Amino acid sequence: MDRNPAGQIPVIGDGTGIAPPDTIYPEELQLALRNRGMPLEALQYPITPTGLHYLFVHFDIPFIDTRRWRLNVGGFVGNPITLSLNELRDRPSITLPVTMECAGNGSALLTPRPTGQPWMLEGIGTSQWTGTPLAGLLEETRVREGAVEVLFTGIDHGVQGGKIQYYQRSLSIEDATRPEVILAYEMNGEPLQPQHGYPLRLIVPGWYGMTCVKWLESIQIITTPFNGNRMTGNSRSNRAKDGPGEPVTRIRVRALIVPPGIPDSMTRSRLVTTGLIQLTGRAWAGELDVARVEVSTGGGESWEEAELGERVSAYGWHPWSHPWHAAPGKHVIRVRATDSQGNLQPSTQPDTYQGSGNNMVQCIEVTVE
Amino acid sequence: MDRNPAGQIPVIGDGTGIAPPDTIYPEELQLALRNRGMPLEALQYPITPTGLHYLFVHFDIPFIDTRRWRLNVGGFVGNPITLSLNELRDRPSITLPVTMECAGNGSALLTPRPTGQPWMLEGIGTSQWTGTPLAGLLEETRVREGAVEVLFTGIDHGVQGGKIQYYQRSLSIEDATRPEVILAYEMNGEPLQPQHGYPLRLIVPGWYGMTCVKWLESIQIITTPFNGNRMTGNSRSNRAKDGPGEPVTRIRVRALIVPPGIPDSMTRSRLVTTGLIQLTGRAWAGELDVARVEVSTGGGESWEEAELGERVSAYGWHPWSHPWHAAPGKHVIRVRATDSQGNLQPSTQPDTYQGSGNNMVQCIEVTVE
Repeated sequence: MDRNPAGQIPVIGDGTGIAPPDTIYPEELQLALRNRGMPLEALQYPITPTGLHYLFVHFDIPFIDTRRWRLNVGGFVGNPITLSLNELRDRPSITLPVTMECAGNGSALLTPRPTGQPWMLEGIGTSQWTGTPLAGLLEETRVREGAVEVLFTGIDHGVQGGKIQYYQRSLSIEDATRPEVILAYEMNGEPLQPQHGYPLRLIVPGWYGMTCVKWLESIQIITTPFNGNRMTGNSRSNRAKDGPGEPVTRIRVRALIVPPGIPDSMTRSRLVTTGLIQLTGRAWAGELDVARVEVSTGGGESWEEAELGERVSAYGWHPWSHPWHAAPGKHVIRVRATDSQGNLQPSTQPDTYQGSGNNMVQCIEVTVE
Repeated sequence: MDRNPAGQIPVIGDGTGIAPPDTIYPEELQLALRNRGMPLEALQYPITPTGLHYLFVHFDIPFIDTRRWRLNVGGFVGNPITLSLNELRDRPSITLPVTMECAGNGSALLTPRPTGQPWMLEGIGTSQWTGTPLAGLLEETRVREGAVEVLFTGIDHGVQGGKIQYYQRSLSIEDATRPEVILAYEMNGEPLQPQHGYPLRLIVPGWYGMTCVKWLESIQIITTPFNGNRMTGNSRSNRAKDGPGEPVTRIRVRALIVPPGIPDSMTRSRLVTTGLIQLTGRAWAGELDVARVEVSTGGGESWEEAELGERVSAYGWHPWSHPWHAAPGKHVIRVRATDSQGNLQPSTQPDTYQGSGNNMVQCIEVTVE
């Protein structure tokens, strides 16, 4: 069904998908007010307190009655199954702390800036997710020879690109059956909140949040690769405007700083008291480990190695800390991480026309008095 | 302490406090990403699910260790007291559903638009607050003859208007001792979340949220009216730019609509299926009751009376509903409420230079197919 019989698709701005410099469209502000980031002072927590994890809802939040809700697992299988929430809860379960990040985190800092949910750096969070491994469920359905992907469909739907769509993403059979991939019904020991996917969402540790389909109601085994809206468009990153691009999958390495001192209530610029202060923050690299975190406080390309603590789980972030002798004046503090494969966060923006995966180094300006 | 020895106060935009047309400053986007509105589809709930209530944090979220935290109640009293969280929990308690709204809700829809947290219409929510009545605590401190106000101070602080400030608001003795004014330690039956004021916040039912000081640590009885930053500036509304203005206190009458149909993921414009649909929403009027809700679906000044349901408490919102025969085409749906004193929501923006209390009628554009 077309969005509009006259063929007019509502768009933000001039429809190019790129905002002119210094422009934030009202539609984007509306998205920023609905969705929410994790205020960066919450980086001090190994597990993000409930309600502070980032949230990005593509359509409306569905409110689901679990007396009627069922999960259907079927498609190219020998034994399709239907499960209630209680039946899912009765299955084997694991609990995993997972650092999740929005693929668009940092997109509002790009030049040119792609339009859409305008994340600065707050599209992150780490929760304890509890659920049942997907692999066991797929085994029970007896996936048939020749299957290539698993397609996940949420209940949430709306108009995108001029068509009515349900939120859908797929994974290869290999990725879907990794032992850490779960169907989660609890977040930090409580049933999922409505906005985080109640009653059930997919969790793919180490992958960008767009993979973790919320309000899950259908899992279908398919024999050809899924090519829906959430697998294309700005769900791919590429260097050129019109190329096919690369799928956005695993979270890239990044470190962030707990903003030191106190904020200005409007500009959020920071005021720090002269003396020795301990800079702290978190660093993560998706499925990989973080090898090194470095801090720059003097401007230029002088970097000092920070102390890196133990990560909260194989898919969670590390704490880092670094002492800084804050002298009066204005300073720029930067932090950068390197993952276990040697990938270093770039100091300038990566090539990402659509705005996904911008892991450019964070800069914080502080005034010391 | 001045924000900056050189006398430079960081400001948004050109420093006038007014944004040019079609401009949203990056600092304002940053505020919108930290703070969060209630997505309007959650209007369908009498009590807003935890995590969906609006949130506005002026400085940073403080993270408080209640082993060391104490509430001090003193000043112009005969018997100053200090209480731990457990001692507060041991006192008599009441639970009240309260509809809370940010005084700046609607400020981003004004022309000219004051700079700051740029709310559209989502700065609202209704929670069940549990706490101990303030009146009993004040009685125990033996407030002395000649006291005029009660000053509430939160732990949160930062720079505002070039000075380091703690978040502070005052109430008259009369307002502070009303039976529904409580010191709340639970929201929807759970300890307060850090971002909502853990361990303790003031709740003044029927007043704008700015009154409900979070992370409360001091209550002082004073003998002269408090004139701090949060009692002046954009905490007052007035018609002229430079007048003293009126204090922003009680919530004005307003009705909002559960957005019908399904959204466009980017523009949030709505697509509705042809036929009879039930429009629904909520209406509230602070300390007053709502007398009437009217709906306009045909454009112009044709209004039909909606069915108004029972409010969730003396300080909570009412549900309303109204049937609509949706015919193909584009329509503008509006809703307006009248309070028990005959105050009707304005169709055009009220005089509010600083942006507080804009209860202009909501308009939703929908496409019916």
